[in-house]
Amino acid sequence: MEDICVCRACPLESEIPALVSELMDNYQSTPKTHYLNRRYLPNRSEAVEIINLLLPILYPGYHGRHDLTYNMMTFYAGELLTELSSKMCVQIWHAITYILEAQGEAVNEDATRRLARQKTFLFLHRIKALREILQTDVQAAYDGDPAATNTDEVILAYPGLFAITVHRIAHELSELQVPLLPRIMTEYAHGQTGIDIHPGAKIGKHFFIDHGTGVVIGETTEIGENVKIYQGVTLGALSFPKDERGRLIRGTKRHPTIEDDVTIYANATILGGTTVIGKGSIIGGNVFITSSVPPRCTVSLKSPELKYRNHRPMKVEEISDEKNKL
Amino acid sequence: MEDICVCRACPLESEIPALVSELMDNYQSTPKTHYLNRRYLPNRSEAVEIINLLLPILYPGYHGRHDLTYNMMTFYAGELLTELSSKMCVQIWHAITYILEAQGEAVNEDATRRLARQKTFLFLHRIKALREILQTDVQAAYDGDPAATNTDEVILAYPGLFAITVHRIAHELSELQVPLLPRIMTEYAHGQTGIDIHPGAKIGKHFFIDHGTGVVIGETTEIGENVKIYQGVTLGALSFPKDERGRLIRGTKRHPTIEDDVTIYANATILGGTTVIGKGSIIGGNVFITSSVPPRCTVSLKSPELKYRNHRPMKVEEISDEKNKL
Amino acid sequence: MEDICVCRACPLESEIPALVSELMDNYQSTPKTHYLNRRYLPNRSEAVEIINLLLPILYPGYHGRHDLTYNMMTFYAGELLTELSSKMCVQIWHAITYILEAQGEAVNEDATRRLARQKTFLFLHRIKALREILQTDVQAAYDGDPAATNTDEVILAYPGLFAITVHRIAHELSELQVPLLPRIMTEYAHGQTGIDIHPGAKIGKHFFIDHGTGVVIGETTEIGENVKIYQGVTLGALSFPKDERGRLIRGTKRHPTIEDDVTIYANATILGGTTVIGKGSIIGGNVFITSSVPPRCTVSLKSPELKYRNHRPMKVEEISDEKNKL
Repeated sequence: MEDICVCRACPLESEIPALVSELMDNYQSTPKTHYLNRRYLPNRSEAVEIINLLLPILYPGYHGRHDLTYNMMTFYAGELLTELSSKMCVQIWHAITYILEAQGEAVNEDATRRLARQKTFLFLHRIKALREILQTDVQAAYDGDPAATNTDEVILAYPGLFAITVHRIAHELSELQVPLLPRIMTEYAHGQTGIDIHPGAKIGKHFFIDHGTGVVIGETTEIGENVKIYQGVTLGALSFPKDERGRLIRGTKRHPTIEDDVTIYANATILGGTTVIGKGSIIGGNVFITSSVPPRCTVSLKSPELKYRNHRPMKVEEISDEKNKL
Repeated sequence: MEDICVCRACPLESEIPALVSELMDNYQSTPKTHYLNRRYLPNRSEAVEIINLLLPILYPGYHGRHDLTYNMMTFYAGELLTELSSKMCVQIWHAITYILEAQGEAVNEDATRRLARQKTFLFLHRIKALREILQTDVQAAYDGDPAATNTDEVILAYPGLFAITVHRIAHELSELQVPLLPRIMTEYAHGQTGIDIHPGAKIGKHFFIDHGTGVVIGETTEIGENVKIYQGVTLGALSFPKDERGRLIRGTKRHPTIEDDVTIYANATILGGTTVIGKGSIIGGNVFITSSVPPRCTVSLKSPELKYRNHRPMKVEEISDEKNKL
Repeated sequence: MEDICVCRACPLESEIPALVSELMDNYQSTPKTHYLNRRYLPNRSEAVEIINLLLPILYPGYHGRHDLTYNMMTFYAGELLTELSSKMCVQIWHAITYILEAQGEAVNEDATRRLARQKTFLFLHRIKALREILQTDVQAAYDGDPAATNTDEVILAYPGLFAITVHRIAHELSELQVPLLPRIMTEYAHGQTGIDIHPGAKIGKHFFIDHGTGVVIGETTEIGENVKIYQGVTLGALSFPKDERGRLIRGTKRHPTIEDDVTIYANATILGGTTVIGKGSIIGGNVFITSSVPPRCTVSLKSPELKYRNHRPMKVEEISDEKNKL
């Protein structure tokens, strides 16, 4: 098998100039889907690189180099932090300059660089606090899952911990008013885990998402401490108010509030910006809720309405036919 | 820690020849799970490479090289298209030759190469149309999601846009009767996003999938213009008819038709080849439908049947016990 | 755009030493989230590498090198097996030594190396059996999905087959009492496919997961032969019993038993360690079950309780407003 095209004087090659010219015309007429002749924009692969530099700082010995002594870690941490601060500063600079440019404001490069350095500085000094809250999330996963044999397994393998780690990183950047970059980070984690947490969501300590695929936590969600959530749970918006010109109003509280010590079982849906799940309540699997639940209340599906139909006794060869009649 | 095995004269090494011989015998007896002594087969990593070459053509400045001027883009586009046309031509050639070989037909290499070039040529001339329809999808995401701050965020971060982009590429190849390759592409996107769209599905312009994890859109689904779908929505088959020998009948219309201006909320399930959701209708979250819905109709779960049970007032240490009784 | 930071004498650089010192103190006080001064731990990227070496052994010609003859495969298989046995032996050694160290037991390096070699040896001799059972899974996917054009498509593209392949590998290691490594492998597959199968789950031959995103199969699940499962199905735990000190009891049977010839449709939830779904039964989409179902029984949602509301006839410009009232 030739993996390179072996046709000499490939007839397709002669088509390329006409295609390029057609495409260049098209770029002129559809400006919303290209970013040509514009300078500032955060970069997705750099955002991923920043996460990959933060992981061995947050969980040394588990991610990145292994077999590290404390002494070696001193040098490794210095190396990681140097590279991280430089990459993060560039991406934050792009993000804040981008938004100024997009809003038609004049860009003073020196001022935006200074601002980027300040925000990077503030982020770097939050790493310790990040490690402290993540320690509670690791513990929450171990406490909440009988299949977890130890906290090492949680750190090495649990997608829920990865998603909440990236969320907490992105949320810090979001709190520092860094545009775009936080969302790029959480959507990367979404792709890796199936867990979609908007960087704007506020989440208290000791948070655990088990299994996690299909979880959606919207932008204005507020979650207290010691909350446990299972796969497929949606904390979403009920409806989107529009302004007088019919355009969506952005930035209002559209997603629920979950108080401390709440457990939400698999595939439950909780919608609405005024919906509050009270402290210590339990929301059962598949429950669909659009209004508040008082504290210390268990909500579950009422007598699951099921229909049972017995197949008549049948021979083996009939079984596969039967299965296709549902 | 030694990451290479340090055992001299590793006792396992002496086992390898016997294992190889056992394995080679096994390949003879289980031919369905190897592809030895056969020549043509599309290649998964090349399919991914083709997508990665198309992304900076479809969204220049967002994917691939950044900080591009129009002038630089002329050269970059030429470079991308040259590499794309060559790789795509080889993969299409493998795909069409593979299917002939699988059907036991004689393969004329010159004829299949010519056919591959023709199909590649036709695909390349569809890129402009692809960009035009994708522009409507980008707009649909911005129009439909209050959390989207601008269309740049949609292009850089939204998994729904990535999935629909790969689908529209794969669907073009599917329309050109290219076997296997389109499905490899959409399953790659499925892995990246949790959104599973069969390349055969027909989808109109201005289509938006929000969050998206768990969405399944079956092979014979037809979707109109201006449709919005949320996470966990299944557009699936109701039952699989079999032929007189008990084998599945493939290729019939098994999946629903969704008309223009329909919105389908999270985790709704719509099944069946004769099920039509009429123009402008709204399907609520978690709704399970196996028959048609007329135009301009809202379908929602009737009074969610929930059971509320208040916990008696309790001390803090009791709360964690309570949580395990559900 | 400068992708490297161009600030000379970057003010952030002078911050690094203080940050490192703060971080080192933090590592002392939060020992659960670092793995410093400890030697043994399985490595995630090596675990992925082991899977990537096994794929071309299990499905030669589909994964890894292509255009292989039987003769070439003899050499390629030898190469793959040599690298695999060495990498696997090291990772198994780390895993078993890690758990001894974690339990505070003395580690005899010679003894643990010997044990690792034995387990690797036993695994390598299971590859043939793995190929045999995977052949039945490939067939199950083709038999069960009308969209599958042939078994080649299943092997090249189906995420369900990838997930079950990694599960069967991990389950073998789990049966060999290798700690941690199996879970790292299945969580990698979970990230790639959205299908979360605990390595402890026992699954019979001819198993098919269609679409698959959101599937969760818990640790103590037992699944018979010829079972078919769709996207979003949870085979989960009902409640977690605790010991007298309020800690979760780990290792009891918490997840259901699914007998032979059962089909479970999309988004059904089956919970509980004493729940048995009898041979040949069919569980309908969205069904939520916490008790046993007899053999040859179809369980489905009773008359889906839906509310239909017709919109009054309206002008086009009203439609988009209407959609936001749900």
